[in-house]
Amino acid sequence: MGGEEMIDLRSDTVTKPTEEMRKAMAQAEVGDDVYGEDPTVNELEKLAAKIFGKEDALFVPSGTMGNQVSIMAHTQRGDEVILEANSHIFWYEVGAMAVLSGVMPHPVAGKNGVMDPDDVKKAIRPDNVHFPRTSLITIENTHNRSGGRVIPLENMKEIYSIAKEFGINVHVDGARIFNASVATGIPAKEYARYADSVMFCLSKGLCAPVGSVVVGDSEFIKRARKARKMLGGGMRQAGVLAAAGIIALTKMVDRLKEDHENARFLAMKLREIGYQVNPEDVETNMVILRTDNLRVNASVFLKELEENGVLASSLSDTEIRLVTHKDVSRSQIEDALNVFEKLFRKLS
Amino acid sequence: MGGEEMIDLRSDTVTKPTEEMRKAMAQAEVGDDVYGEDPTVNELEKLAAKIFGKEDALFVPSGTMGNQVSIMAHTQRGDEVILEANSHIFWYEVGAMAVLSGVMPHPVAGKNGVMDPDDVKKAIRPDNVHFPRTSLITIENTHNRSGGRVIPLENMKEIYSIAKEFGINVHVDGARIFNASVATGIPAKEYARYADSVMFCLSKGLCAPVGSVVVGDSEFIKRARKARKMLGGGMRQAGVLAAAGIIALTKMVDRLKEDHENARFLAMKLREIGYQVNPEDVETNMVILRTDNLRVNASVFLKELEENGVLASSLSDTEIRLVTHKDVSRSQIEDALNVFEKLFRKLS
Amino acid sequence: MGGEEMIDLRSDTVTKPTEEMRKAMAQAEVGDDVYGEDPTVNELEKLAAKIFGKEDALFVPSGTMGNQVSIMAHTQRGDEVILEANSHIFWYEVGAMAVLSGVMPHPVAGKNGVMDPDDVKKAIRPDNVHFPRTSLITIENTHNRSGGRVIPLENMKEIYSIAKEFGINVHVDGARIFNASVATGIPAKEYARYADSVMFCLSKGLCAPVGSVVVGDSEFIKRARKARKMLGGGMRQAGVLAAAGIIALTKMVDRLKEDHENARFLAMKLREIGYQVNPEDVETNMVILRTDNLRVNASVFLKELEENGVLASSLSDTEIRLVTHKDVSRSQIEDALNVFEKLFRKLS
Amino acid sequence: MGGEEMIDLRSDTVTKPTEEMRKAMAQAEVGDDVYGEDPTVNELEKLAAKIFGKEDALFVPSGTMGNQVSIMAHTQRGDEVILEANSHIFWYEVGAMAVLSGVMPHPVAGKNGVMDPDDVKKAIRPDNVHFPRTSLITIENTHNRSGGRVIPLENMKEIYSIAKEFGINVHVDGARIFNASVATGIPAKEYARYADSVMFCLSKGLCAPVGSVVVGDSEFIKRARKARKMLGGGMRQAGVLAAAGIIALTKMVDRLKEDHENARFLAMKLREIGYQVNPEDVETNMVILRTDNLRVNASVFLKELEENGVLASSLSDTEIRLVTHKDVSRSQIEDALNVFEKLFRKLS
Repeated sequence: MGGEEMIDLRSDTVTKPTEEMRKAMAQAEVGDDVYGEDPTVNELEKLAAKIFGKEDALFVPSGTMGNQVSIMAHTQRGDEVILEANSHIFWYEVGAMAVLSGVMPHPVAGKNGVMDPDDVKKAIRPDNVHFPRTSLITIENTHNRSGGRVIPLENMKEIYSIAKEFGINVHVDGARIFNASVATGIPAKEYARYADSVMFCLSKGLCAPVGSVVVGDSEFIKRARKARKMLGGGMRQAGVLAAAGIIALTKMVDRLKEDHENARFLAMKLREIGYQVNPEDVETNMVILRTDNLRVNASVFLKELEENGVLASSLSDTEIRLVTHKDVSRSQIEDALNVFEKLFRKLS
Repeated sequence: MGGEEMIDLRSDTVTKPTEEMRKAMAQAEVGDDVYGEDPTVNELEKLAAKIFGKEDALFVPSGTMGNQVSIMAHTQRGDEVILEANSHIFWYEVGAMAVLSGVMPHPVAGKNGVMDPDDVKKAIRPDNVHFPRTSLITIENTHNRSGGRVIPLENMKEIYSIAKEFGINVHVDGARIFNASVATGIPAKEYARYADSVMFCLSKGLCAPVGSVVVGDSEFIKRARKARKMLGGGMRQAGVLAAAGIIALTKMVDRLKEDHENARFLAMKLREIGYQVNPEDVETNMVILRTDNLRVNASVFLKELEENGVLASSLSDTEIRLVTHKDVSRSQIEDALNVFEKLFRKLS
Repeated sequence: MGGEEMIDLRSDTVTKPTEEMRKAMAQAEVGDDVYGEDPTVNELEKLAAKIFGKEDALFVPSGTMGNQVSIMAHTQRGDEVILEANSHIFWYEVGAMAVLSGVMPHPVAGKNGVMDPDDVKKAIRPDNVHFPRTSLITIENTHNRSGGRVIPLENMKEIYSIAKEFGINVHVDGARIFNASVATGIPAKEYARYADSVMFCLSKGLCAPVGSVVVGDSEFIKRARKARKMLGGGMRQAGVLAAAGIIALTKMVDRLKEDHENARFLAMKLREIGYQVNPEDVETNMVILRTDNLRVNASVFLKELEENGVLASSLSDTEIRLVTHKDVSRSQIEDALNVFEKLFRKLS
Repeated sequence: MGGEEMIDLRSDTVTKPTEEMRKAMAQAEVGDDVYGEDPTVNELEKLAAKIFGKEDALFVPSGTMGNQVSIMAHTQRGDEVILEANSHIFWYEVGAMAVLSGVMPHPVAGKNGVMDPDDVKKAIRPDNVHFPRTSLITIENTHNRSGGRVIPLENMKEIYSIAKEFGINVHVDGARIFNASVATGIPAKEYARYADSVMFCLSKGLCAPVGSVVVGDSEFIKRARKARKMLGGGMRQAGVLAAAGIIALTKMVDRLKEDHENARFLAMKLREIGYQVNPEDVETNMVILRTDNLRVNASVFLKELEENGVLASSLSDTEIRLVTHKDVSRSQIEDALNVFEKLFRKLS
């Protein structure tokens, strides 16, 4: 691709802030957020709480911190957390829950990231001196490792109802909850009704440079705020980041549609080329391509792509993940497809 | 059953010490074991190390403590431990590994407690900033929740070889390793060759009132000893317990054969009655009875048994576990079978 | 001392069980204590609860475990515990509270182990996002590192009253609370009035081979029992140990008087010889001897003692601790004094 | 002060970014820092490593996170950390070290924040089954709670030498190390010679809105980077913050002189008014004012100040802390002195 930019389909985390965001950051009114005095952070938190229909909100520097302070705030040392076996919290957060919260994951294998409510119910521990207490269930929506699949509202409702029956809280890892919302037309607030807390990211598809937000009731947010301080997530003039976050939340949600359209377009074309891709599985901004019908495994294929100017990532030895986002245009996707076509001829 | 004793098939943990053990306890030479000066504890530890072909050993008050000090000694905060999804460590140890060691379990679903070495290999985490470090694999032999199944030596060998390839340690939860040994004729030492540490129990089938032992190399035992002190497992004149343990280890192993024969007898007779039991699955001292063809679930069935003088336990809503041991004679098993027959007529 | 027994003044932890204890252990009625079915353990726990005027009790294998399950049951991850700077929990429990409970010690320097209630009050953390929550104060009575000093009831009362004002619990590390009780004539129950929980040891001066007991209200004991299971302190036929514990509790308390008399005698004689010892500081069964007026430091002096048949321990480079107990008779103390006299001539 | 801005002497954490910083943030070249691809973060980290003479560096969102990932990287679960009894890590970091690292603090009382090397040596634990392992000593320079006192290089050298003798690492909480450097003329690099790691803040006196940096050797930084990910401190396009940080580090250090001059001026004038202040204790940008000779305690005095347009903070019931920084000019300090004079007449 000589001299040109790489086409980066590794993740929507690579999105760069818009000009409007940069301008807002430069002009942000700021204060010391550890004292609760940053007006821009306060505005963002109020806005987030309103959009999700919750009492309060907390700005954090990353989705991982948002999930982990939520776990800290919902659990006590020695508890157990039910989560989907392929969830980000189990898979990509460095085993944090054991260290930070002293709690065990109890993985439940889902289908496309969707846990069967009966399986969730069976995983709840009875009261017994041998067992940890089940105090939390987490749901990831959209679900990353299944390729951005949407967890149906009805499923969330059922799990929430089981949770409440057993006095258990529900946390939603909604890093990409707005992708779910845009895909289904169901407002974020409606998803949040079946959760005691939701974490969502301002970075990723929404393009803010840094930051996520946790929403929940006031008592929960108070505990999460203290946990954030303990982890070192209490930042000072954080309004410079929150200013970009406000734009992410107010002006960047609708554009996720484009990413979804690009992902579906990409999937269809890849299948036409001959790749093992199911376009009907593409519900949001991710495409999963299986390498079984290629003569190379995922990591070799990634290298070939890179040498041809396309970046992607792998989920396993036989699965490539492609993520669409603001910084990959339709025309770049067409360029990428040319590369894919060339490689298919070479490697299939 | 009138004034008579209950027939207790709940667990081999209920076994009472023999007269010889009681006498040995009363006469034990003792000292302060925290200072390393209890001659009887020292003798037991030396004996255990020899039997398992390891450098050193550590006496602990329970199998749970033996497993947990081993995990503490093998791992660092933030690591991940691969274990079978139905293993005791994941299921019945109160979520201890997250609290005591700050490590995550990575459950791998096995068949009859046997993990596929390929699945173990896939569960090992590559070096990546998102991932915990995999530092330990645990194997449970015999495997409790699968009904006392023996993990084949060959399987242990393969997993051990993978572990060593990746610089990972292997711990065997051998609470009932002597049941495996007696069932297969393979010496404990041979099983221990494919493990960096083994925990085994002196109580359970071996009938000592209290205690388990961990074996491994000297450096490991030194770390485990410090972990034991931290957990409060450093006992003073522990020789009174170790004296019974020496008898357990030297005189009670062979009698496990009887328990196995009784278990198989029980299983065959239960199937004859009509119960859902597979006698060919009975490899050691446990029988699993499924309640699917009864009109009641496991917990109701347990109550009916109890009212008729028989104690058992359940693994789930549809699985009853029956455990044979020294304190249930063949004649008591026959009495129990009369109860089972009566209940089958009533409840099937 | 050729061929003879060493005179062991290192600690009262070295005491061996009496014949009566050994006999009781051999004859103990036992059951599976994890199921709550060991009648002898149940009897011991009932007896302990009654003596201390608390709702319930829990048998544990060591004083360290008793203290640590109490801390686990009283605190949540991230809390802070106020304790005396020289207390056993801070000094000799392997840093357990940080690992097992995830809590910080907040040491307050006392005088002879006695914390000034004003200092305790100042150490309580206000509600602030920067601070851990103070949820527990621990008091050690008698206080080991100050030489077995008794914490006055009045001091405990004041600290308890401050604690209750701030909604904080109080735990008493009463490993040697009966030494305090025998020295002052104040019943254990009276000390326990100013504590939410008390741990006391059946070993040490009371001579049981293994075991301690925690007392408190039923909810606390339920949490402590689960914590004990997590640490691996749930033992099976623990009645063999509890049988000795019952004798310790019912028949061995009064004899502590002798240990106290021996300690005072030893102290007076040591001062007569010329050693830096204050007999008026000897309130229970410990004597502290400063080595400042000797030509050798504590560790060299210990070696000289050992070569002459006397064992002792050091608290620091300049402090030797001598502990009297059942297994050191008055006549042995006189023999030890001969050694001390000889060494004084040599080393002063 | 009707309508006017408050004069904010609470902390230098309240400083707002300069115009140059805002412009740099708006124009920053960014990438995904979790992938190591943010050029501005990389530039900042390289610069920091160079200034401190260390192999590598890590950008973190706060000083607390910088200290805590350092502790995580230097210690193992169950270790002990020697620190000054009034240090920020012990006092203001929410008890994080116990939760995140599973380690105990071992506070050593210093004088003006300076620990006596002999006391440090005494606090190191010998190898014994009862003791945690001492694996880290932390030094805070400048020392916040003593009023911004500088820890002398010679003292750091002595402690470092003891640490190395015992195989222990030294971490410097240098949140305000550049204040020390500017006050003494000793380069940061020279201080860093006597430390295995240093954390310093870009916010506070250096005025960046958000961020701190940890420096150390490559292996240490690798571990710290993983710990940062676990805590959720891995940020995406963090270059927007790092851009301000580069300006903080290259252009804002020298101006700390002004803050120091203002602090000394403030102290002298306060003493002239009659306040209990020692100008000779003012080594950097903090002034401590004792309220003993006033008729009100610290918290009432703070309220009076606030009603008159001056914000300050308290260290205890009798100590007020005043901090000078970029956003308080000499003329505002003179205004504040007028308020102090008025209040002295009213309250002394």
